[in-house]
Amino acid sequence: MAPVSESSGDMTSETSRYSMHRSLASEPHMVDHAKGSYLYLSSGKKILDGCGGAAVVSVGHADDGIVAALKDQLETVHYVHTLDYTTRAAEAVANQMLKPYKGTLAKAYFVNSGSEANEAAMKMAVQYFYETGKPQKTEFISRLQSYHGNCLGGLSLSSHVSRRAPFEGVLSDHVHFVSPANEYRYKAEDQTTAQYVEQLANELENKILEIGQNKIAAFVAETIVGATSGCMTAPAGYFKAIRAVCEKYDVLLILDEIMCGSGRTGTFFAWEQEDVVPDIVTCGKALSGGYGPLSACICTPKIIEGLEMGSKAFNNGHTYQAFPLSCRAGLAVLKKVEEENLLKNVKSKGQYLSSELKKALKDSKIVGNIRGRGLFWGIEFVSDISTKSPFDPLLKVGPTIQSMAWQSGVAVYPGTGTVDGKFGDHILISPMFNVTEEEIDIIVSAVSKSVYEFENSL
Amino acid sequence: MAPVSESSGDMTSETSRYSMHRSLASEPHMVDHAKGSYLYLSSGKKILDGCGGAAVVSVGHADDGIVAALKDQLETVHYVHTLDYTTRAAEAVANQMLKPYKGTLAKAYFVNSGSEANEAAMKMAVQYFYETGKPQKTEFISRLQSYHGNCLGGLSLSSHVSRRAPFEGVLSDHVHFVSPANEYRYKAEDQTTAQYVEQLANELENKILEIGQNKIAAFVAETIVGATSGCMTAPAGYFKAIRAVCEKYDVLLILDEIMCGSGRTGTFFAWEQEDVVPDIVTCGKALSGGYGPLSACICTPKIIEGLEMGSKAFNNGHTYQAFPLSCRAGLAVLKKVEEENLLKNVKSKGQYLSSELKKALKDSKIVGNIRGRGLFWGIEFVSDISTKSPFDPLLKVGPTIQSMAWQSGVAVYPGTGTVDGKFGDHILISPMFNVTEEEIDIIVSAVSKSVYEFENSL
Repeated sequence: MAPVSESSGDMTSETSRYSMHRSLASEPHMVDHAKGSYLYLSSGKKILDGCGGAAVVSVGHADDGIVAALKDQLETVHYVHTLDYTTRAAEAVANQMLKPYKGTLAKAYFVNSGSEANEAAMKMAVQYFYETGKPQKTEFISRLQSYHGNCLGGLSLSSHVSRRAPFEGVLSDHVHFVSPANEYRYKAEDQTTAQYVEQLANELENKILEIGQNKIAAFVAETIVGATSGCMTAPAGYFKAIRAVCEKYDVLLILDEIMCGSGRTGTFFAWEQEDVVPDIVTCGKALSGGYGPLSACICTPKIIEGLEMGSKAFNNGHTYQAFPLSCRAGLAVLKKVEEENLLKNVKSKGQYLSSELKKALKDSKIVGNIRGRGLFWGIEFVSDISTKSPFDPLLKVGPTIQSMAWQSGVAVYPGTGTVDGKFGDHILISPMFNVTEEEIDIIVSAVSKSVYEFENSL
Repeated sequence: MAPVSESSGDMTSETSRYSMHRSLASEPHMVDHAKGSYLYLSSGKKILDGCGGAAVVSVGHADDGIVAALKDQLETVHYVHTLDYTTRAAEAVANQMLKPYKGTLAKAYFVNSGSEANEAAMKMAVQYFYETGKPQKTEFISRLQSYHGNCLGGLSLSSHVSRRAPFEGVLSDHVHFVSPANEYRYKAEDQTTAQYVEQLANELENKILEIGQNKIAAFVAETIVGATSGCMTAPAGYFKAIRAVCEKYDVLLILDEIMCGSGRTGTFFAWEQEDVVPDIVTCGKALSGGYGPLSACICTPKIIEGLEMGSKAFNNGHTYQAFPLSCRAGLAVLKKVEEENLLKNVKSKGQYLSSELKKALKDSKIVGNIRGRGLFWGIEFVSDISTKSPFDPLLKVGPTIQSMAWQSGVAVYPGTGTVDGKFGDHILISPMFNVTEEEIDIIVSAVSKSVYEFENSL
């Protein structure tokens, strides 16, 4: 049971009346409390959290050390306005995160959500050019099947069809799209990976030339595509090739690591495994492990030098910028990851998860592809493995398999529209950085049981 | 001194290296700890917080009851993903907030920041029309000298010249502007208030007709204009007249109460004093008093019925939607406000603050206007009271007077560009809801001393 304190007395357990849930037609499950890798529902059900929400919870629920750090922060200082003040929590989390990248990365700007961080990244890119005498560089190139947030800037960068649909009329006209880097689905059979990468780099170059290099501020990509495509990693050499094109045309490279970054893939930044450094990178979710809304927009010395040539300020203030409680949460999570050497665990348990998943699902006739890195894995479902044809969207294959795994006590994250925003299904598995082999066995068993049961029911 | 716990040990007090502050040229002050109405700086300086940041901290710093509630929440459940789960904290804060408005308001959608809440409001308005067969209604009308957030949607709604400047090239083309409702500056001498209101209502009507009523989704306004105009209240009858125009043309009324709402003016919503009900209202800041990033986008039954006719879901998910810790913070603040009858204190101390300010500053030659409501007051500075001419922006009058008050131990919030985004200066005073007369005396004394010293130095 959850600890009951006097202050719990102010919460009734009455049914929702006034809160707006994701669906107006169904009610979400009430979580009573959570600890470690487990959620405990009011219904009595216990769930092994195999995804940490949308890859958010990274070092477990109600961790004693993190809870103690946040209690200390609550008693010290919970809020200051960054116009005049800073806090040790804000300085320390930045130092802890960026010290290992001294000389490579310069500064981190902290906001609440990934959506806010990506809006900040767009604004930072545009302001960089504004201050350095190229105010006409205000256009962006993004990729199909990507997701960069739900505020109107980030949603404009996203090609998530269902999330965009009602809002097409208000989205920005300043975003242009190129193909995703999806070797599984789009590399031709007679193509080598190098040829496919060259094709994608050429497409980007042609798009830049088509719009005009003097107009493009940045190319934006998720280093590993998250919820939209189900942990889609790029083909070897892709980011190096893309980076070269960006440099050729004075286009900034923004990498969105809200979902795949902050250690999720075994290195703090996912781009460390791609042999490139972006001009701007955003991270969030696992950064604070859900202990406080914390995302960061991080830039290189080049960007800072650009801003210093002009107004000497990034023109983007927020009330909850560098919010002390969230910064302290991020600091405590980063410290725990360092002290317990959790990135090593992400790598080793990631290999174990990947090989166990592939082993358990090798006989499935609906698992088209298993891809990912570290503790960030996607399983794409298809109606025919040889043709890679997706299922009828009405079958809701992703959510159905997620629901079946959930019934047997394991939470994974569902995805639909994997192929083009309408067709395609996947589930996403992203357990805690301190996940054990035993927990992985439970996750893999529940997932494979659900997949086989589902395919037998077809 | 701040309480020192073992967990403080993970924070060094070294100078900032990697955190990006608002200015790249100067360092903010380090806050060691805070309690009640006071900030305690590492330098040893003690500051009476007369503005709660940007009107954020509403019931004091490190409040024992709120800290206890948050500690309980930390030990219970800190994060769930709203795709599948909810928490008692999320349900309870919605119930606590909206029960008094049963039948008038339907549901609250919780996000982190005011920026996110205003993006949600824009999307909710557009989706409402999309679901009810009017997908072409995607344009917005906003007002000059307004501020609605720093993400690209909210910034597009804002006419804050300096915040927009570098980003004009990426902002939305779907926002149109009408005049602010500023009786002090724009009501003609030979006009009655009723005539001025009629003029503004006619201007809105003409703007709707110019763009096409079938294209306009919503008119967006701050009930009391915050940081951009310095607590500018609307003339009597303005919102009633505006409401009638909106209804005539099937245009939704969105009121942005991020800064002025949540009790700041003596009623929970500022529009309760304007004899109108908006279709959508946003609130934040004082809602959780800075104990967690919490903002809400709240709608009427009409909006819910519209969404239920279509997809039966508001198409706008966020990772930190209805974040349990922030919801618990909001709940604890709302409970405290109710139990200690703080709205009554907001009204009575607001009257005291207003009369003391007017008394203390009556001989000033640079105070053009003192306006506001409840505990939300702005002082506009002019170089000539009779002509209302603003000062040269290079004099930085607002920030200078703020800095002088700060040196004498009182924090207020500065504003520039009060008139048109370039010219004009003000300071904003927004103390805690539980402020005492003694604290108000200290605030008024420090402000008036600074104002007179500044004008004597000219």
